[in-house]
Amino acid sequence: MIIIGEKINSTLKAVRPAIESYDHDTIQSLAMRQSEVGASYIDVNAGMFIDDEPERLEWLVNTVQAVTNVPLSVDSPSPVALEKALKANKNGKALVNSISDETAKFNAVAPLLTEYNASVIALCIDDQGMADTVDDKLRITASLVNKLTKIGLALGDIFIDPLVKSIGTGAKHGIIAIETIRKIKTEYPEIHIACGLSNISYGIPARHLMNKTFLVAAMTAGMDGAILDPLDKKLMASLYAADALLGQDPYCKQYNKSFKNGLFENV
Amino acid sequence: MIIIGEKINSTLKAVRPAIESYDHDTIQSLAMRQSEVGASYIDVNAGMFIDDEPERLEWLVNTVQAVTNVPLSVDSPSPVALEKALKANKNGKALVNSISDETAKFNAVAPLLTEYNASVIALCIDDQGMADTVDDKLRITASLVNKLTKIGLALGDIFIDPLVKSIGTGAKHGIIAIETIRKIKTEYPEIHIACGLSNISYGIPARHLMNKTFLVAAMTAGMDGAILDPLDKKLMASLYAADALLGQDPYCKQYNKSFKNGLFENV
Repeated sequence: MIIIGEKINSTLKAVRPAIESYDHDTIQSLAMRQSEVGASYIDVNAGMFIDDEPERLEWLVNTVQAVTNVPLSVDSPSPVALEKALKANKNGKALVNSISDETAKFNAVAPLLTEYNASVIALCIDDQGMADTVDDKLRITASLVNKLTKIGLALGDIFIDPLVKSIGTGAKHGIIAIETIRKIKTEYPEIHIACGLSNISYGIPARHLMNKTFLVAAMTAGMDGAILDPLDKKLMASLYAADALLGQDPYCKQYNKSFKNGLFENV
Repeated sequence: MIIIGEKINSTLKAVRPAIESYDHDTIQSLAMRQSEVGASYIDVNAGMFIDDEPERLEWLVNTVQAVTNVPLSVDSPSPVALEKALKANKNGKALVNSISDETAKFNAVAPLLTEYNASVIALCIDDQGMADTVDDKLRITASLVNKLTKIGLALGDIFIDPLVKSIGTGAKHGIIAIETIRKIKTEYPEIHIACGLSNISYGIPARHLMNKTFLVAAMTAGMDGAILDPLDKKLMASLYAADALLGQDPYCKQYNKSFKNGLFENV
């Protein structure tokens, strides 16, 4: 699994003050802890700071890469902030979070991908809005893959986020997400699929239970990436168990190691 | 999900003495508790009592049906014991656990299914032994479905158990099980698939974690039945979450009820 560590995010109440006050220690601790538990990318987001997001995102990039070599996921709706972050990046190939098939957004973000040789999370949204059905999600995926490969991205540089809706607002949203993942992975085995997990449980109780259940179900369908909290032991226990179950962890090496390290206590 | 409650089984150390001593109270308590939490079938097994299995299985049937109307799963390798249990059964359509495609076994058990109008768990084993590959499991499934429908069973009376092997003995056993479930359900949407869960984790640590991860993955692939312990709260939490996720629990009714009843605490 490709784990995109989501902890350094200005929308998180516990983290926002650290970005506000330029608190190196807190940010670097979050970066190191996520690196240590195996994050493939460290996401950095300063989107809540409307007045000076680009400068704060640049500061996050510099602060994080001072303590870890793990590649960065630069997370912003603003092409200006993304470019400032990509310019500062020294941790190898970055992941841009995110592009979509909305014309204006695509045209603004796409040039950054080629100029800075970045991978990208591509959301199933176009000028008609967020895709709701499996067919619409597949149609937008095809369009995004087509446009992104045309400008020079390899299939392996593309992470499709099919955009999950809560099962609290419709009983079919879970199977739509899972069916979409299965079909995308069948059609494009080389591209990655990376979902956020928590939308699936918005508005229902026991969200953590539903999020980890969705993680296992989505991995079973072919999801090979996720934006999640790698410091969440119970969630990571499900992830390592699913990796072992699905043949992604030969000899259960990571699974056994996680057990020995106490990660599976109380799960 | 069709839940086959596995608690009344002579192979369980905690239960065997109750069968040994004809302890009505313990057996009836296990039957009632499984019924209360929603078991679709109560499995009864006296297989450890080699000398008088048929009589003990008959006693279990009578003891259980004195306190619950939930249908019984009569569980024995012995056609004699199965027949005695089926003759005693008054709880509606029973489930015979199990038949296989081994010639002698099939010929001995099949007549009981028609005579007593029972459903059946059909194991992916034939005269060559236990099927190991997806193709072999599908081939045996096709043979079993063909033979069972020929003698008059409806597709909905058949529960295929693809027979799961531990991922501790081969990294591919998990995906083989899941791929088999997916393909059987695609080819025969009307038949049921019911696995035991615990074989998947034989010989590895944190078995409970792996069992519930497998439950979610197998349900995602199309498994609609399972032989499990319905008194296991953490396992049932995963089951209800997967049901809600997969659109099998409209308006999250069972999920919300389980949450309110405290089933999701500490998961």
